[in-house]
Amino acid sequence: MSAPLFLGTSIASGLLSIFVALFIYYQVKNSDQGSEKMREVSALVEEGAYSFIKVQYRILAIFTLILALLIALLFVDFGIQIAISYVLGSGASMAAGYVGIVVATKANRRTAAAAESGGLGPAFKVAFRAGSVMGLMIAGIALVGLGMLYLLWNIIVPVEVFESLGLEPAVGLWEIITGFSFGASTVALFAKAGGGIYTKTADLSADLVGKIEHHIPEDDPRNPAAVADAVGDNVGDVAGTGADLYDSNVAAILAAAILGAGIDLHLDGVQLFGLLPLMIAALGTIASVLGVFLVRAKPDQNPGPALNRGTYITTLLFGIFTVVMVVLLQLDIAIALAAIVGLLAGVFIGFTSDVFTSDRGLGGFQPVQKMVDSADKSSANLILSGYAYGLLSAVPSVVGIGVTMVVSFLLGSGATTLGPVMWENGIYCVAIAAVGLLSTNGMIMSSDAYGPIVDNARGVIEQAQAPEEAIIVCDKLDASGNTAKAITKGFAIGASAVSVLALFAAFLESTDTLRIPGVVAITDVNLAAPVVLAGALIGALVPVTFSAILILGVERNSERMITEIRRQFRDDPGILEGTSKPDYDACIAIATSGAIKELMPGTLIVILVTLATGAFLGLEALAGYLGGAVLSGLIMALLMDNAGGAWDNTKKIIESPEYTKYEKGTEDWHRVHDISVTGDMVGDPFKDTAGPSINTLLVVITLTATLFLPVIAAANAWFSSLFG
Amino acid sequence: MSAPLFLGTSIASGLLSIFVALFIYYQVKNSDQGSEKMREVSALVEEGAYSFIKVQYRILAIFTLILALLIALLFVDFGIQIAISYVLGSGASMAAGYVGIVVATKANRRTAAAAESGGLGPAFKVAFRAGSVMGLMIAGIALVGLGMLYLLWNIIVPVEVFESLGLEPAVGLWEIITGFSFGASTVALFAKAGGGIYTKTADLSADLVGKIEHHIPEDDPRNPAAVADAVGDNVGDVAGTGADLYDSNVAAILAAAILGAGIDLHLDGVQLFGLLPLMIAALGTIASVLGVFLVRAKPDQNPGPALNRGTYITTLLFGIFTVVMVVLLQLDIAIALAAIVGLLAGVFIGFTSDVFTSDRGLGGFQPVQKMVDSADKSSANLILSGYAYGLLSAVPSVVGIGVTMVVSFLLGSGATTLGPVMWENGIYCVAIAAVGLLSTNGMIMSSDAYGPIVDNARGVIEQAQAPEEAIIVCDKLDASGNTAKAITKGFAIGASAVSVLALFAAFLESTDTLRIPGVVAITDVNLAAPVVLAGALIGALVPVTFSAILILGVERNSERMITEIRRQFRDDPGILEGTSKPDYDACIAIATSGAIKELMPGTLIVILVTLATGAFLGLEALAGYLGGAVLSGLIMALLMDNAGGAWDNTKKIIESPEYTKYEKGTEDWHRVHDISVTGDMVGDPFKDTAGPSINTLLVVITLTATLFLPVIAAANAWFSSLFG
Repeated sequence: MSAPLFLGTSIASGLLSIFVALFIYYQVKNSDQGSEKMREVSALVEEGAYSFIKVQYRILAIFTLILALLIALLFVDFGIQIAISYVLGSGASMAAGYVGIVVATKANRRTAAAAESGGLGPAFKVAFRAGSVMGLMIAGIALVGLGMLYLLWNIIVPVEVFESLGLEPAVGLWEIITGFSFGASTVALFAKAGGGIYTKTADLSADLVGKIEHHIPEDDPRNPAAVADAVGDNVGDVAGTGADLYDSNVAAILAAAILGAGIDLHLDGVQLFGLLPLMIAALGTIASVLGVFLVRAKPDQNPGPALNRGTYITTLLFGIFTVVMVVLLQLDIAIALAAIVGLLAGVFIGFTSDVFTSDRGLGGFQPVQKMVDSADKSSANLILSGYAYGLLSAVPSVVGIGVTMVVSFLLGSGATTLGPVMWENGIYCVAIAAVGLLSTNGMIMSSDAYGPIVDNARGVIEQAQAPEEAIIVCDKLDASGNTAKAITKGFAIGASAVSVLALFAAFLESTDTLRIPGVVAITDVNLAAPVVLAGALIGALVPVTFSAILILGVERNSERMITEIRRQFRDDPGILEGTSKPDYDACIAIATSGAIKELMPGTLIVILVTLATGAFLGLEALAGYLGGAVLSGLIMALLMDNAGGAWDNTKKIIESPEYTKYEKGTEDWHRVHDISVTGDMVGDPFKDTAGPSINTLLVVITLTATLFLPVIAAANAWFSSLFG
Repeated sequence: MSAPLFLGTSIASGLLSIFVALFIYYQVKNSDQGSEKMREVSALVEEGAYSFIKVQYRILAIFTLILALLIALLFVDFGIQIAISYVLGSGASMAAGYVGIVVATKANRRTAAAAESGGLGPAFKVAFRAGSVMGLMIAGIALVGLGMLYLLWNIIVPVEVFESLGLEPAVGLWEIITGFSFGASTVALFAKAGGGIYTKTADLSADLVGKIEHHIPEDDPRNPAAVADAVGDNVGDVAGTGADLYDSNVAAILAAAILGAGIDLHLDGVQLFGLLPLMIAALGTIASVLGVFLVRAKPDQNPGPALNRGTYITTLLFGIFTVVMVVLLQLDIAIALAAIVGLLAGVFIGFTSDVFTSDRGLGGFQPVQKMVDSADKSSANLILSGYAYGLLSAVPSVVGIGVTMVVSFLLGSGATTLGPVMWENGIYCVAIAAVGLLSTNGMIMSSDAYGPIVDNARGVIEQAQAPEEAIIVCDKLDASGNTAKAITKGFAIGASAVSVLALFAAFLESTDTLRIPGVVAITDVNLAAPVVLAGALIGALVPVTFSAILILGVERNSERMITEIRRQFRDDPGILEGTSKPDYDACIAIATSGAIKELMPGTLIVILVTLATGAFLGLEALAGYLGGAVLSGLIMALLMDNAGGAWDNTKKIIESPEYTKYEKGTEDWHRVHDISVTGDMVGDPFKDTAGPSINTLLVVITLTATLFLPVIAAANAWFSSLFG
């Protein structure tokens, strides 16, 4: 009875979310595009974004098809189905990213136009609505994709096939659908890490040749890298963050579904707990759709509270919906509580990240203000204090994640009307907490995408020489965007961390439910066993190595672009004089292909090391490997995200009117400001390239282990047989 | 039969090592002290060192006595004995540090004098012999301390007491002796972390006020912080590294002894495997004593090969001794092989650290040369590339540690003439590998302590205006010292890592052999259990938090010293004119007390969090905690040590004649050099404060868990009873 309800709600609310997103998209598209000058300025960025997408998606398509072919060949069972799911997962993720970028780049000038003609209220509405297209799109696609695939494979693959493999159909279906999540994650890794290399390459190169060598202002259209730089902002912030939240969401639902299917197995195959996560996610999406329409800024007021109000309302609605659903369906209340615990954890992690990165701090604890003092001493002092506070910032978040895990586990294992195995119930509720945390990702992403849109709108309005009042409107919009972004970043880390923990449990569950010949179910990942500990040591190195590769990649790629910019200035002096147009596409092509060139080795290494650890050291060591990766990855991600954010805000404070220690423009002020620029430059690849990529990286390696489990087990059996 | 042999050899060779050290000490002391000027210059540092020791040891004594009292009160069984062992362990460690600092500060001017009168050969001999005093002292004290305590408690505590507790006497004896190792480690933490804060406080403050504000040269005697700065070098490099190797060595022997006593238990209580680690360590010490006497530099040659030859000979002798012993005593050859595997691992980790930090690199892989290029771009580029290479440098070391662990485990578990439990035999051999790695620590430390001695000798000879030839001799000595130091640093990390792994196993073993009422032996540290994973998450935060506290501590403490230096300059203008002597002791007192003030909270937090994790989450979570701490600690330590070393050498290359891109003194050269100074300043607290302290930190927390096991178990039982 519950299966059709859950699947139906999931698909229906997913479609609703997508249709609302498309409806808003056309609304935004048809709104006023502003003056000729505004159109001209922002059209360049729009073209640049298309140019980026063209190149990136071509390479991604090749990558996806090769990997799909490998999957089809490597898997003894369901190779074709998994490959198709994988291709669909990649495709859906690319589509979501495409829509997000398109609407974001279109919304810049429209927000600017609304700010000029209508003031704060209408401008806020355009920007926020445009952001919500990305938010609702990713929430909807996840639900439709997972729900439809479940239906599809349920219809196509005859029950007898599952039975002949000794598999419960639901278990087999979710195994196939793991391909979808894997597709989402690999695309997300490209979007986030590739986008991260892209945006920082362009940023660094444009600044170095433009500002430092030729003394032309930031964002000057004479700079051949100017468009790449602006495109990078949209690409990294809108598409990258969207892909990150999307893949965490899909992974969390999948993990909970795998664990739920395991419980169902003990309950004579009712289809209840396996599909329940879809239902919970659907409720969150409905809450987000409602929340998006309830967000309204009052004129002449800071729109920050409006954004926060939207988030609170969505959270509240979700909580009510979930409790009502649990009561109506007579499910255990532990499930609703676990989902709510997850949601609260996301808010807590977002809040504490904000304490470490914002100028406000918390009470007497003012890390960023201390860093402003350090900047007055020396570059080294600023780097050291940012690094130290970055390290400290990991403490509350990691503790929060641990508490969430333990509390939701205790809720589940104490539940009386779940499955028969206490342990399984507990782990299932950890996964439900992850689903709960991500349930409102539609709304969260809407607030987040709003940030870069208003940021760019401000750029457009300034370059289009619009009246002063319009600029003030955009400044207000921009300020509220920054706060929203800081909170989302912490939220994204928490979301992926809890999702990865859930996936880790799903990986272990799969060693049992998939009934792979020769594989004994892993219930124990014993760190006291040297081979498991060795796996954990290798795993701990993975996020470390990946971060290093990304940072060195940004450095190398920016060298290429610097050479190209210098070449253009040299070959055509008209560019600097403003008489001829620079070749923006050349820089965009370098940023794009270079980003992927730098990313490819890291991605391949990571996937291969994951497979090799399992094949050579065994599945228990592979589990240890995943555990080690989570431990070091979480800390590295929080360190880099928050140190980067704190350096960024240190610079912003020194530039702001509230900084009164030295008068702007004096020698002392320039000294301190230069130091803060160094901090910001170090922080840029930390917070926009390496740090946030680790989230996705963790999901990718855990999914690699889960998806390729039968292949890894076969390879390990073969390898073990070599030694008798 | 074997027990008297092993104990006798251990104590005898320990005493031999100590006597040889004292003999060399008087030799060094009675050698020529050089010109009046040389004496004058170096006497200041010598006085400063005493002043440091006075203050530090007073505070340490109070800390030790309070903790001893707590131990005596908290433990139901053996409280007094453990407290006494702990006090002896602290005292022995302090004595070793005292001798090391005394001889190092005395050796400076004597090396300088020998360089002037006798040339390279005699100068090298004085410096190396002086270094060997510290090396042989720590090796000897470990053996005598552990051996004598075993004898002492064996005589004092009646066998009936152990039997009434259901304990095998050997198990009980090693439990008591754990106090000795805990004492060694807490003192080492103060020496290493406190010394690290001390030396970087002095360094930073002296540079900032002296060089930047008053334009007086480095090490100028007019600078009130000059002596503190020079003292800091000896304190951090000689005493700190010595304490680090010493405590790792004691911990490794202890861990192997605890595990060996567990095997003996299965063999009807023969006293064989529990005492064997002492024997192996004794063989390494005898090899070191012989090695020290065989080190001789040929005149007119780089003394580097002489140092390396000493290490190779010692290693070879140890290998031969161990194999001969194993054959003569008809033990399993796996034991000798495991010890040798450990030793090779130490060499490998030292070598790979050198690749990432030296100007040589390896083949086409030249991290430091790349960093020299980065320094030509911007401070941010240099910081980013150093950070990225620091991350990458963790890869070979951590993999090396993993391989050592797995190989020695396989050797042990495949052995046929060890104990009856394969698993225990395997873990025992991991601990034997740690003992093997550290067996030659007498020789390793001798080469290491040589470095700061020749470094200071060079300073003395320059300030005493000795002839040019003598300076060239000291330059040659200095160059070979730097390479030796880089290798030792890697070695120290490897040593403590493998020791901690062994201790981790010993902690688990203790949950079995200590027969604590209500405690079930932990054979399983299951990362798949949420509470264990939560423990691991908390554990992973410990090295992170501790590093952050140390780095922020250096910043805060240097603020205090800067205020004092400025005050002295202001209050007595004669100081800057050179007519009155600055108050060196004031700066030394600030550096010392400030260092301890900054260190105290971190140390207490770490010990309390360890106890609390066990008390509230249980012993399995505590085991997960230790595992998490090792995983993140290893990576943090390698990152900070090696990034710091690489930044240091980047600066050195830019200052050296081999750097020809810009001519020295030109504007471009100054720009690049200033950037490299920033890198070095960031690297200083990385490589001399936070990074190396993590080694000791890991030993301290693992020993805290092991030593306080009965107390933690009782607290946990009480806490659990609150919830029925």
